Amino acid sequence: MILKKDSVVTLAHGGGGTLTQQLIEEIFVPSFKNSYLTPLNDSALLCLNSSRIAYTTDSFTVDPVFFPGGDIGYLSVCGTVNDLAVSGAEPRFLSVGMIIEEGLKFSELEKIVKSIKKAADEAGVVIVTGDTKVVEKGKGDKIFINTSGIGEFTKDLTLVPSNIKPGDKIIVNGDIGYHGMAVITARESFGFSNVINSDVAPLNRIIKKVVESGARIKVMRDATRGGVATVLNEIAGSAGFTIEIEEERIPVAEIVRGACELLGFDPLYVANEGIVVLFVDSADAEDVIRIMRKEKYGEKSRVIGTVTDRSEGIVVEHTSIGSTRVLDLLTGEMLPRIC
Amino acid sequence: MILKKDSVVTLAHGGGGTLTQQLIEEIFVPSFKNSYLTPLNDSALLCLNSSRIAYTTDSFTVDPVFFPGGDIGYLSVCGTVNDLAVSGAEPRFLSVGMIIEEGLKFSELEKIVKSIKKAADEAGVVIVTGDTKVVEKGKGDKIFINTSGIGEFTKDLTLVPSNIKPGDKIIVNGDIGYHGMAVITARESFGFSNVINSDVAPLNRIIKKVVESGARIKVMRDATRGGVATVLNEIAGSAGFTIEIEEERIPVAEIVRGACELLGFDPLYVANEGIVVLFVDSADAEDVIRIMRKEKYGEKSRVIGTVTDRSEGIVVEHTSIGSTRVLDLLTGEMLPRIC
Repeated sequence: MILKKDSVVTLAHGGGGTLTQQLIEEIFVPSFKNSYLTPLNDSALLCLNSSRIAYTTDSFTVDPVFFPGGDIGYLSVCGTVNDLAVSGAEPRFLSVGMIIEEGLKFSELEKIVKSIKKAADEAGVVIVTGDTKVVEKGKGDKIFINTSGIGEFTKDLTLVPSNIKPGDKIIVNGDIGYHGMAVITARESFGFSNVINSDVAPLNRIIKKVVESGARIKVMRDATRGGVATVLNEIAGSAGFTIEIEEERIPVAEIVRGACELLGFDPLYVANEGIVVLFVDSADAEDVIRIMRKEKYGEKSRVIGTVTDRSEGIVVEHTSIGSTRVLDLLTGEMLPRIC
Repeated sequence: MILKKDSVVTLAHGGGGTLTQQLIEEIFVPSFKNSYLTPLNDSALLCLNSSRIAYTTDSFTVDPVFFPGGDIGYLSVCGTVNDLAVSGAEPRFLSVGMIIEEGLKFSELEKIVKSIKKAADEAGVVIVTGDTKVVEKGKGDKIFINTSGIGEFTKDLTLVPSNIKPGDKIIVNGDIGYHGMAVITARESFGFSNVINSDVAPLNRIIKKVVESGARIKVMRDATRGGVATVLNEIAGSAGFTIEIEEERIPVAEIVRGACELLGFDPLYVANEGIVVLFVDSADAEDVIRIMRKEKYGEKSRVIGTVTDRSEGIVVEHTSIGSTRVLDLLTGEMLPRIC
C-alpha cells in the first residue's frame, strides 16, 4: 500500500516500472475504473456512433528539451502517433497543450513548434486544438507538452495480449536503446567522443504497411519507458505465456552498447521512441520482416524471440554465453524524465 | 513582433489577453494553420467517418491546487466538459495527463483523483485514457493536469460568431467573478472574514436542455480566463457587431463585488469556471431564461445585453450612473495561474 500516512510521490513512480503500476492500481484504477480504461493499454478503444476510434494522451517532460536527434516537440507528436498506431488505428487528429516556464526564449519555443509541425506532417496527422499556460520561473522546467490523439480504425482489428498463442514470433524494427542513451549523454557529459542520436520517429506508416498486408498481428507496443524488456514483461504477464528471446538476436548499435556498458545500463531496459515490438503468427513472420525492411525505420527489422507454451508469464533471455536469465520488471526509475 | 532576439515568454503570455493572442498568432498559427485549428475556438469540430465530433484540450496549473469550492482535479474535468458543451456537442470521453512534482503526498493525489471522478460522474463523461509523469522537486508545482475531451454532436449545430445578428440577446447563467476571487483570496490572506467559493461546475446538462429546446442559439462560450468581458470582446470582434451590456444587469454577488473593490479588480474580467455566455435569437430569449432557471447552476440566469447593428465590433457598457465605457481586451495577466 502506497497510501500510508504522509507517504509521497517519488521520481520512481514516474519511471514506468512496478512503482508506476502500483500508483495506477492503488490510486487511479479504484476511482476511474471502467471498461474503456481498465485494459490499461496506451490507447483507449472507443465507439462514436458506428466509428471505432483509438484515443490516447501523453505528457512530455524530457530533460533536456533539445537532445541529439530530436526535441520535446518532435517527441511529443511521435509518442502519441506511435501509441495510436500500435493499437491498429490510423492516427488522424492531435491536441497540443503546453505548460511553459516564464523566461523560455521565443526562439526556443518557435523551434519546438516547428518540430511539432515537422513530425505531424511526416506522420500525416493534423494538430486541431491546443492550449497554453505559463507558470512562474522555478515552478516548471522550460516547457512541458501534453499531446492527445484520435485514431481511426480502417480495419476491424483488436490487438490485445490475449490474442497471443505459443509459437508466435516477436519482431522489432531496429536497433534498441538509442533514445535513452541520447538523452542521458546529452544531459551529463561523460566524455563520449561520439554523439548518440535519439531514434525518435513516427512509426505509423511502417505499421500501416504491416496492417494492410493482412499478416496476423496479435499485439503491438512501442517500447518507450522501461524499454523492450518492460513491454515484453507486460505482454507475457497479460497473455499468461512465457516469452523467450535470444540475446544474439537483439539489435544494439555499437555506440549504444558501449555507452550502456560504461554507464551500467542494460539496453533492453533503455527507452526507445522509434521502436515497435510486434507479436505475429509464426507463419507470417517472414512476410512481415520482408515488408518492414522496405520501409523507413524498418531496414533492420528482425525476429528476436518466440512465445513458448509455458504459462509462467515471464520473459527469459538466452544469453550469448549459453546461460539463461529472467528479465524482470524494474521497480523504479532507471532514467528519470526520458520522455 | 514578439520574436525579437532573446525575447522571452512572460506570465502575461498565459493570461488569455492580447499577449496570449499575439503568442498564438505569431508562433503557433504560422506553423500549425489548418482548417480545423484556424477558427481558434476552444473545441475543434471534426468528422470521423460520418460522425461529427468536438475535440478540445486544456492544461491546468491553478495555484493553490485546493481552493474553496473545488480543486485542480474537479476543475480539470469541468473546464474540458464546458469547452465541449459550448460547442454544442455532448461531452463523452476524457483523457487525463498528470505532471506530478516529486514529494506530493499520496493523500493529496488521492483527493484530487476523487474530485476528478466526482466531476466526471456529475457530467456523465468517462475517463478513458491517462498518463502520469513525475518531475524533480522544484521543477514543477505540486501537480499540473491536462485533460482532453471528445464530444458527440446529437444535433446538427454549428455555433460560431458569424451566426450573430443585430438584436440577439446575451444571457449568462449566474453571478460572475466567483472563481477568480476564490483562488486569489485562497492564495493570499487579505483579511477577508468570509470565504469565497469557486463557481467551478460542469455546465453540460444545463446547456443540453437549452440545445434540446430548439431555441435558436447563435454561439456560446464559457467565461474562463479574462472573464465575461474577454468573451464578449472576442465574439464582438469576430462577428463584427458592437455589443451593448447594462452594468445594472450584470449579476455579481456582494461578497465578490466587495473583494473586487478592495483588490482593484473588475468582476467582468475575473475568471469564472461555471459561467456560460449564450447569444440567442431575441424571440427565444425568454424561453431560454425560463428553461435555464429550472436547472442546477441556472437559477440566476438573465439577459445582460444585446447585439447592436453597429459594426465597430467592440463592447460598450452602460453604467449604473448613466455613462458609457468601452470594455477593452486586457493586454496581459490580471490573475496568473487561475486555472
